[in-house]
Amino acid sequence: MADEAPPVDPLRHHGDAEVRGSGLLDLAVNVHDGPRPAWLDTALHAAVDASGAYPSPTEAEAALARRHDRPAEEVLATAGAAEAFSLVARWRAWRRPVVVHPQFTEPHAALEQAGHDVTPVLLPEPFVLDPAAVPDDADLVVLGNPTNPTGVLHPAEAVQALLRPGRVVLVDEAFMDAVPGETASVAGLRAPGLVVVRSLTKHWGVPGVRAGYLLASRRSVAALRRGQVPWSVATTAAAAMTACSTPAAVAEGARRAREVVAHREHLERGLADLGVDHVTSAAPFVLVRAGHGAHGRLRERGIAVRRADTFPGLDDTWVRVAVRAPAVSDRLLAALATPATPPTAVER
Amino acid sequence: MADEAPPVDPLRHHGDAEVRGSGLLDLAVNVHDGPRPAWLDTALHAAVDASGAYPSPTEAEAALARRHDRPAEEVLATAGAAEAFSLVARWRAWRRPVVVHPQFTEPHAALEQAGHDVTPVLLPEPFVLDPAAVPDDADLVVLGNPTNPTGVLHPAEAVQALLRPGRVVLVDEAFMDAVPGETASVAGLRAPGLVVVRSLTKHWGVPGVRAGYLLASRRSVAALRRGQVPWSVATTAAAAMTACSTPAAVAEGARRAREVVAHREHLERGLADLGVDHVTSAAPFVLVRAGHGAHGRLRERGIAVRRADTFPGLDDTWVRVAVRAPAVSDRLLAALATPATPPTAVER
Repeated sequence: MADEAPPVDPLRHHGDAEVRGSGLLDLAVNVHDGPRPAWLDTALHAAVDASGAYPSPTEAEAALARRHDRPAEEVLATAGAAEAFSLVARWRAWRRPVVVHPQFTEPHAALEQAGHDVTPVLLPEPFVLDPAAVPDDADLVVLGNPTNPTGVLHPAEAVQALLRPGRVVLVDEAFMDAVPGETASVAGLRAPGLVVVRSLTKHWGVPGVRAGYLLASRRSVAALRRGQVPWSVATTAAAAMTACSTPAAVAEGARRAREVVAHREHLERGLADLGVDHVTSAAPFVLVRAGHGAHGRLRERGIAVRRADTFPGLDDTWVRVAVRAPAVSDRLLAALATPATPPTAVER
Repeated sequence: MADEAPPVDPLRHHGDAEVRGSGLLDLAVNVHDGPRPAWLDTALHAAVDASGAYPSPTEAEAALARRHDRPAEEVLATAGAAEAFSLVARWRAWRRPVVVHPQFTEPHAALEQAGHDVTPVLLPEPFVLDPAAVPDDADLVVLGNPTNPTGVLHPAEAVQALLRPGRVVLVDEAFMDAVPGETASVAGLRAPGLVVVRSLTKHWGVPGVRAGYLLASRRSVAALRRGQVPWSVATTAAAAMTACSTPAAVAEGARRAREVVAHREHLERGLADLGVDHVTSAAPFVLVRAGHGAHGRLRERGIAVRRADTFPGLDDTWVRVAVRAPAVSDRLLAALATPATPPTAVER
């Protein structure tokens, strides 16, 4: 579906559709664009060599458990975060599933795909979580932290305030590894009803591998595992999870997170200098109020940013911009600084 | 689940659980055990290098469409055949889903996982399809061809006789590429309600890659695609599908199929010479009536075969044996020729 334009379902529009085959500078996809670490590359190629056997997530789950200091029974390896969202969506006959927006739309789409009627909660600018905005009778609450596309990092206390008996709280921490110290993460919190989804995709630059996982109670993990398609985690995905869970990998991930901060500071400072409004971000992307039509104008100048009007609660005055090295961000800043050219006849 | 013994659900017991970490000679897993073709290996490693982008099945589906001489809109790439079974299971509120047994148990398990009440049809020995055995009101019929674990190849006419308005017929052709000329395949038949599932796993020896696909009407493919988890087909899986669909790959697959025939003839002749009953097979495995306790006795002698008592319609007098090179089959034949040792106290 990602290749179709316009997308059939705006909730299923993703950054990859903005760049595939376009030749544009990619500031749309939130994936680390640097070279893959040699140890990860080696692990992935070794996994191809080992693909003559059926895959097993056991070793990967043990490694992830050690990385998060939890029992292995509280870890479920998944085919990317996308499978985790689908498993939670199909887990129960949710009475009132709530998705806190603006956020990554996949959990919402997965819930609708599973036949649920989703109650959206739209956070107003500056998009900070107010636990009181979530209806009391919500039996599932889905929240991103740090949130895509706003970049807002909600305090762990606000996330924990959502927990209550009879409710599942799914926290999408797909970008948490880009936050130095993983402050505000609840991945280590062992609370009934809490499901934390993580991903290797963005921070390690491997979206093609489909490597994600979730952390939850032993009972929840067992139930969600029963909903999985057998062998859904490929040998390469399992190998990536094992490789990215070593202490050395976690240390390198932390260095990478600090680099993201430095690069983001450059971008945010440049936006401020131009007087372009944006939401202060804790993520490897920034939500920028570039104005109506900015998405198309930037494409004309060779730059793909993520349109934001497909995110509930946002409109086309916003675009999401990936954090890149300063020289790359400077191209965006230069384009934003240049006044718009008049539209051509074709574009009308 | 594959690592647990005994399995929680016998329908989810598979050959990989019989050998993982056992050090036994593997005659349990139905996967080609020869070296991977160089062109496939190259494609898989190149796919790892390309995994920095989100995966797309578009190119793979176009290649598979050319291979089967069907429009690309009639092909859906899936994360192994297992995902295809799950998609069909969750597709509709089946009123009377029927699974023709003995057969690969995953479609049955996927239907139960999706909350359906499955009507099994048990074919008596010699396990040949009788379309009249299928209840008239079945709105879904699942059949394997050639069938795992019996090795029986049902004629295309018998399969077609199952088709009727308002019914979906899912034919699992995961082993059809091991049949020279793919006689009896309905992969090229464009009939409403027909869904043909194929897999690259067995013939190309890549179970760790999770590469399968289905062929169906444009409308069915569109509907089933809507049920997929986004990006469920990894970059490596898509690359394998593309690589295995070239005319050269198809020709090599046909050579490999003829080799399977020669190897199977050796095994079947050896069984006949020993007076061991078996079902004449068209597949890369043979269902052997080795007698009560044969599964355990062979394990004692260092040989893992697939227990067959978890297949509805079979009992523990049967085991399934993978077709291997003659020298390997000879080890099995020698073990079958030796009388049983008396059981030890522990084994009682």
